Formats: sequence, C-alpha cells, structure tokens
Amino acid sequence: MRIDIVTIFPEMFEGVINSSILGRARREGLVEINLIDFRAYSPNKHNTVDDTPYGGGGGMVLKPEPIFAAVEALTEPPEAGQASAQQDKRRPRVILTCPQGEVYSQAKALDFASEEHLVIIAGHYEGYDERIREYLVTDEISVGDYVLTGGELPAMVIVDSVTRLLPGVLGNNTSAVLDSFREGLLEYPHYTRPAAFRGWSVPDVLLSGHHGNVERWRRKESLRRTLLRRPDLLQSLELTKEDRKLLDEVKREEGISR
Amino acid sequence: MRIDIVTIFPEMFEGVINSSILGRARREGLVEINLIDFRAYSPNKHNTVDDTPYGGGGGMVLKPEPIFAAVEALTEPPEAGQASAQQDKRRPRVILTCPQGEVYSQAKALDFASEEHLVIIAGHYEGYDERIREYLVTDEISVGDYVLTGGELPAMVIVDSVTRLLPGVLGNNTSAVLDSFREGLLEYPHYTRPAAFRGWSVPDVLLSGHHGNVERWRRKESLRRTLLRRPDLLQSLELTKEDRKLLDEVKREEGISR
Repeated sequence: MRIDIVTIFPEMFEGVINSSILGRARREGLVEINLIDFRAYSPNKHNTVDDTPYGGGGGMVLKPEPIFAAVEALTEPPEAGQASAQQDKRRPRVILTCPQGEVYSQAKALDFASEEHLVIIAGHYEGYDERIREYLVTDEISVGDYVLTGGELPAMVIVDSVTRLLPGVLGNNTSAVLDSFREGLLEYPHYTRPAAFRGWSVPDVLLSGHHGNVERWRRKESLRRTLLRRPDLLQSLELTKEDRKLLDEVKREEGISR
Repeated sequence: MRIDIVTIFPEMFEGVINSSILGRARREGLVEINLIDFRAYSPNKHNTVDDTPYGGGGGMVLKPEPIFAAVEALTEPPEAGQASAQQDKRRPRVILTCPQGEVYSQAKALDFASEEHLVIIAGHYEGYDERIREYLVTDEISVGDYVLTGGELPAMVIVDSVTRLLPGVLGNNTSAVLDSFREGLLEYPHYTRPAAFRGWSVPDVLLSGHHGNVERWRRKESLRRTLLRRPDLLQSLELTKEDRKLLDEVKREEGISR
C-alpha cells in the first residue's frame, strides 16, 4: 500500500513513521509512506497557503489552490500521453482529517486497509476552503470529539491503524491481542510475573493451570468490563447463550438489576 | 503545567512536541514536557519490561515494577526528609492510554488542563499488568474505538489538546476558531479567495458585506452540518428559539420530516 500525507509540518511525522512497527513495515517495503509539503504548491512567491475568510471573523482558511495542486500531482500521471486506462480508474481515496468528519472506527480502518493508495490531507488549525471538501476529498474523518492543533495527529492515527492491518506487518503473537477488540468487547485483565507485587496477588484461577476455567474467567471479566465501562458496545453484539449466563452472573455480583 | 510522558519510545514524540504550537509553548515556558524511558527502570539487567501472561495465550504483558518505579520517581521527593506536606498532597493525575479507558472528549481535556502536573503512561501494543490500572493510575483514557500499535499517539493527542487550552498558548485569532466546537455544533463552511475557483463560486451571502445575513447563514449551515452528520451532538444542546426556526428551515430543505 502507498500512503501520501499532504501537510505543512512533515517534520512532525518523522519520529512516528520511522519507529517501531511502522518503521519496520516501511523498511520491509510493506507500506510506502510519503510526506508532501503543500506549501511548495502555493500559487504565490510568498508561499502562503491560507487567507482570511469571506464574510469576516477570526482565524485563517486554507486556500483551495495549493491543496488541489499537491493532491493532483500525486494522482495524475506526469504526462497526459502516458496515462493508461487502469491508472485513470484507480483513483485513490482522498481523506481529510477534521472535526466535522465521520467518527473514525476500526471498521473504517479495515475499509481503508483494503485500498492500494490513500492520500491524507492534514491541515493545521485553520479551516479548509469548502471547495476542498466538496470537489477533492472522498472521506472526511474525525478521530474523536476533542480539539487538536491540526490534522497531523489524526493523520498519524489513520496511518498507524491501517498499516498494522496490512498483510505481513504484525507477527502472530501481536495479532492475537487484537481479536477481542475486533469482536467488540473490551479486553479482560492481564497479569504477569511477579505473582505477588507489594502484597497484590494475581487471581488464583490464572495460576491454576485449568485451561477451561481460565477461558471462562477471561470471558466473564471481558463482559464485566464492557458492561461497566462501555455498555454502548454491548448493544451491537450478538451474545451466545453462555455469554448471557456470564453476564447475568456479573450483574448479580455488581448489584445491577435485570 | 508539567507533563511527564512515560514510554519506551521517547523518539516517537520529538517531532510532535518540538513543532508548531507545542514547540512554541515549550520554548516560552508555558508547558514543561518530559519524556521518561521506563525501560531504564527494569528490575533486571536485560532491561525487559514485559513478560508472558499468567493463564497463557498470545501477546506480552507490561510488568508492574518498571512502570511503578518510573512513575514514583516522578512523584515522590528524592529524599524522604525533604518532603513537605504540600508536596504530598499535590499528587499528579496518572493517565493510562488504553482501548479500555473512558472515551476522551473536550470536557476531559478541560479537566486535565486545570491540573498542575500530569503523568501519562504510554504502553506499546502489549497489555498492562492489571495492578498498574488498579493501584497506580487515576484515569484510563481511550481516544477512540480503533486499534493502534501503542499508547504513544493517544498520549500525543492528550498533550496537544490539553496544552492548547493553557493560558497564553493560543493567540486570539486561533482561539476564536474553537468557540463553535466547544459549543457542541460542527463548524459552518469556510471560504477564502479566489471567489471563483475552477467555476466553483463562494456563496453570494459571504460576499454581500451584510453582517447579519452572514451570521444567520453561518448558524444555519452549522446546524445543517450537525443535523446531517452528527445528530447525536444535537441531543445534548440547548437550542434558542432562533436556532429551532433555522433547524426547521434546514429540515424542510433537506426533506427531513418533523
């Protein structure tokens, strides 16, 4: 997969895209990540990319020309005569990170991970000229209901969440950790050595060596945590008969009626 | 404010905390951000910070010792004799970034921004030993319902969203942009020069110079966008009589009944 990030702060990305799993995936050629400074596509010699808003008010607005030009340079063939029909059909998804977008989710990450080419536009604190949203962008994405300085961190969130879903990026050990989240339940509590730390002990069942009891305890604690912390996630799940029984036990233990 | 980030990937943070508004806020002394590598607090000479889970299964679990030691070195006075009562009382918030946490919001950012000292623990893809959550952490935070490689990007999200709320960090121009989001509505469309770009024109009202009409248009488009994209946000708002009238107009225009 190829991911192009269109930004005026390319240096913000270096630490993240060169470390850990993202860095290794790039070195192994499993994902290509390019940083494009759209200031280079400014229509004037001062390299400005924003201007005051029509209708007045505070703040600055990102102009349409530099962003259209930067994205089109990535998606159109350099010379018109060389364009193949296939190239024309495979238009990339063009993602805008902004607070007005669709709320990002693991389902959306899976959707993006099935593409061959993503372009992510990461603007910085200013608003975007509306024509960018209307005529250039295919997906507007918000990573959450909080205000950030710009779209750079949301762009990193998308790159990280998508890359780890690509074939070959995660080993078996790590991918196993995903399963419970994908399924829609919060993870059960984890414990490792020491068995007693400052007098706080690991639950006996985890030391028992009884596989069936361990699995039952984990499932029950996963249901408990989801019920107590994120009951909204339980709504959209199809629970088995055993799950409903465990959930009833949890509700009795927690003093929750029905 | 002082923010300590406890991580095994300090290099991931450099680009973000040294750029743009965060970089300037640090240079001006408005916020102190420290990166602490908790691998240095490993209890063994191999510097390991994780181990296999009790009860079996894939993945690795972050051990309690290094994280307790790293956080306590930040919060306890270096010598017991020098501790003042005041220091003991002002225990920092200790935030864990994880998918099982409370969903992060602007209200939570405002809450954190009122503290003097935050400690953020950013673990990496493994789970955390449950005793860290139970006995060390005051706040578990999830930035959204998607799977990331680690807690580093969520930690950056918290740092950015909190720092921009601190006194003196944002100029007047930029802070004005916040207002509509804080209020719970999505922003209206923005436009800047050129008035016509590739045949796509700026709405006439924004060029009219009629301040009252501009304000009315912006409010109406803000309500329209929120209704169409995030009706959940409208539920928790107290709308004025004028807002309800504009919303009725929008519903008629969009063919939405009631």
